[in-house]
Amino acid sequence: MFYQISILCFLIFGANTCDARAVGAVYLLTDIGDMFSSNNNFQAMGREKDKLIGKSCKELKEKHGFDKDGLYYLKSSTGVIYETFCDMTTDGGGWTLVASIHENNINGKCTLGDRWTSQQGNLENFPHGERNWANRVIFGSAEGATGDDYKNVGYYDIKALDVSVWHVPNDAAMEHWKASAIIRYHTNSAFLSLNGGNLYELFQRYPLKYKGGTCQTDNGPSVPIVFDFGDAKSTKEMYGPSTYGETEPGYVSFRVFNYEQTPMAVCSGVKVIGCNSEHYCFGGGGYFNPARQCGDFASWDWDGYGTHTGWSASQKITESAVLMFYR
Amino acid sequence: MFYQISILCFLIFGANTCDARAVGAVYLLTDIGDMFSSNNNFQAMGREKDKLIGKSCKELKEKHGFDKDGLYYLKSSTGVIYETFCDMTTDGGGWTLVASIHENNINGKCTLGDRWTSQQGNLENFPHGERNWANRVIFGSAEGATGDDYKNVGYYDIKALDVSVWHVPNDAAMEHWKASAIIRYHTNSAFLSLNGGNLYELFQRYPLKYKGGTCQTDNGPSVPIVFDFGDAKSTKEMYGPSTYGETEPGYVSFRVFNYEQTPMAVCSGVKVIGCNSEHYCFGGGGYFNPARQCGDFASWDWDGYGTHTGWSASQKITESAVLMFYR
Amino acid sequence: MFYQISILCFLIFGANTCDARAVGAVYLLTDIGDMFSSNNNFQAMGREKDKLIGKSCKELKEKHGFDKDGLYYLKSSTGVIYETFCDMTTDGGGWTLVASIHENNINGKCTLGDRWTSQQGNLENFPHGERNWANRVIFGSAEGATGDDYKNVGYYDIKALDVSVWHVPNDAAMEHWKASAIIRYHTNSAFLSLNGGNLYELFQRYPLKYKGGTCQTDNGPSVPIVFDFGDAKSTKEMYGPSTYGETEPGYVSFRVFNYEQTPMAVCSGVKVIGCNSEHYCFGGGGYFNPARQCGDFASWDWDGYGTHTGWSASQKITESAVLMFYR
Repeated sequence: MFYQISILCFLIFGANTCDARAVGAVYLLTDIGDMFSSNNNFQAMGREKDKLIGKSCKELKEKHGFDKDGLYYLKSSTGVIYETFCDMTTDGGGWTLVASIHENNINGKCTLGDRWTSQQGNLENFPHGERNWANRVIFGSAEGATGDDYKNVGYYDIKALDVSVWHVPNDAAMEHWKASAIIRYHTNSAFLSLNGGNLYELFQRYPLKYKGGTCQTDNGPSVPIVFDFGDAKSTKEMYGPSTYGETEPGYVSFRVFNYEQTPMAVCSGVKVIGCNSEHYCFGGGGYFNPARQCGDFASWDWDGYGTHTGWSASQKITESAVLMFYR
Repeated sequence: MFYQISILCFLIFGANTCDARAVGAVYLLTDIGDMFSSNNNFQAMGREKDKLIGKSCKELKEKHGFDKDGLYYLKSSTGVIYETFCDMTTDGGGWTLVASIHENNINGKCTLGDRWTSQQGNLENFPHGERNWANRVIFGSAEGATGDDYKNVGYYDIKALDVSVWHVPNDAAMEHWKASAIIRYHTNSAFLSLNGGNLYELFQRYPLKYKGGTCQTDNGPSVPIVFDFGDAKSTKEMYGPSTYGETEPGYVSFRVFNYEQTPMAVCSGVKVIGCNSEHYCFGGGGYFNPARQCGDFASWDWDGYGTHTGWSASQKITESAVLMFYR
Repeated sequence: MFYQISILCFLIFGANTCDARAVGAVYLLTDIGDMFSSNNNFQAMGREKDKLIGKSCKELKEKHGFDKDGLYYLKSSTGVIYETFCDMTTDGGGWTLVASIHENNINGKCTLGDRWTSQQGNLENFPHGERNWANRVIFGSAEGATGDDYKNVGYYDIKALDVSVWHVPNDAAMEHWKASAIIRYHTNSAFLSLNGGNLYELFQRYPLKYKGGTCQTDNGPSVPIVFDFGDAKSTKEMYGPSTYGETEPGYVSFRVFNYEQTPMAVCSGVKVIGCNSEHYCFGGGGYFNPARQCGDFASWDWDGYGTHTGWSASQKITESAVLMFYR
């Protein structure tokens, strides 16, 4: 490969000049590729042959041919270098992990760790909550995405067409995410292009604010999904049986209000035709009524933790982090 | 430019040797500058032509001529590489963003997010509070500095002469900070050189500890400022009208005690000649009396949130993050 | 050194060709080593001569001969680049700082900052607590390790044989850590190799869960230690006098249960032969009985803060962060 200056030496000067000393002298430019797992584009950080770094996993896939799942370096529009997980295999690959929603303690009602709703307790005068769906704050790490919330620069920087979602058991190691995920799906309608190109932009258009809208009337988009693992019916049924009458399977929905005018950020796997969205949607603003619904996984535990009875979701989905990707 | 090894080839060997294959072979050293926004010094991270990285934005400006506002890579004395925002245009430029003080919830009294006072609630036996004005803990990100607190390695590493302050509306995007700031000013007296070279050192000399001093007698330095946007009078008047009798406009002040011996860290835009500094200063230690004053923006809401009556500051300044720079 | 392409030029082409312009043209590959403190391997990040980056400080020491304490870049198995402190001098060096346990407020019972137990308050239905001893979440920074908790990628990535522990006064600057540490010791029995190679693996084998075991019967390993500063007796006696009857000096112990079946993560300096481990061990799960024992330094303040009477530890050890290294 052309990374090798030793080869360079031979190409230009021929064998006679390129003796051990000369080659040693030029060795400093050795391709660092073989130091790293072969799918890693780290060499791009410092030197870029053929411009190996990119703005998204999609770019890395399409322009540079990286085709293995794993951690890659990306560079934002403003020059921020960051590392995240690329799904290079689903439906042609090129999916960038931009966020994870992890419920550290569903008994903690809008406590520390509820970054996707509020960490200030349930407060009526904190109607927007943390605002993390719609700001440029970042937190967490890619490898830790199943152990704690994650949000990277790509969440607001990447312009994308579609979203992919994985529900992965808490604390699963990165190398096992795909295989252990209980649900995996993606959209393929380019819906993000109608919404500013990413979720940061979508939530500027559809703010998450208590009393910012009414059930059904003011809901954000519902987007059909294609399953990569699992199916529509079993996904819908991961939530509590009492929810089945108000959800239609086979969608991912955004900014959904409930009866009390509390906005939920994302309803994974379903379109919402009812008004008790706190039981099958996650994330939102800063105030829920009653208070015991407040938190990232909201009121998935209404009828007990992980009981899968009444309004309560299954233990499996309650104990899985939601990983969100763009392409 | 000399980054181009293709040029190198021609310079050294002449055109005949530098055929397509040789040039291709050497292309790996292509200048990566054109990949990035032209004011970004990213190429410095891996390879440094003329040592393009520096310890501060001032160094980048003076030694390498970078003259556009934006994100740049810096390297600390101990070798930590970090990225932050450089103001390369104010008063000759070279200002390094080192911290932001963001009030996420003024109704939360020393709750999560009050990193510049205390996040433990109002505790008399936690008199120093978080200590973040005087330690080497870092948090946040440059682009997120208007969405959450920010503090980088430069805060304690850079040796500087002066400070600059911007009050920027919460959640403003980086490209809009300068234009949307409601106030911008800087010192030009090299006061930091009398105080150890940065705020980390200044707050070693002037600790922020409840009962660590008395109003007026034990205050830290008050430094005259020059406005870049806004003016002294309108800045002073961004605070509540009841405060006007105890502030003199046209200064930035550090470590100011109130009647109850609670230290405030910074009083932006004013010199303090009174003892109710909790209404127009921000940051501090871990205990306020009464408790409802506890938090990064302390008691700017004493007579209601953003009402701009009595002791309450205007909504504009209450809803702006304070960005602090060194030069 | 071979980093210098100017030298390269001379080696290959001789003096005549390497005139100022040619040398200038090649200067872009100048060794960046002299920009940095001489013990820093930063040049490894972008270009790697002789593969100067490594997976651990031990690798940097053994393969590349770095022998000064300080910050170094490491690269994990998955390609994550991170910087941490290497102790290159203790017992032959090669110790990688992977974590610090810092008590920000011993009066805060499982509050923010108690990352090594629980930050959700004392909750019986949160028996595992934060889980940070056994997950891949990371936080903090190396230089800030005495000001706040620290945990890096190496904690779960590096495979090691032994552990080293320093108790360093809170907020000590990195350059003073070694000299100001009140205790320093290390194991030399390769005990980690029997426990999966690091503490992440050890705590998979010995989970930290309330009611996950019984005092004495279910304790994890106790490992003999060698002191680098201080000694066994004075270390044991840094804890409260009431503890002396139930500790044997000269060990570091892991996953120790107390009478109430609360697991403590690490008992520094001692083997435990009793059941009141909350007074001389740190870290653990999410529930303590009574609640006032909850937190990273658990119940080191039972008989008053830093009083060194009864069950209370000395002020010195109460106000020191625990730095943990692997080799």
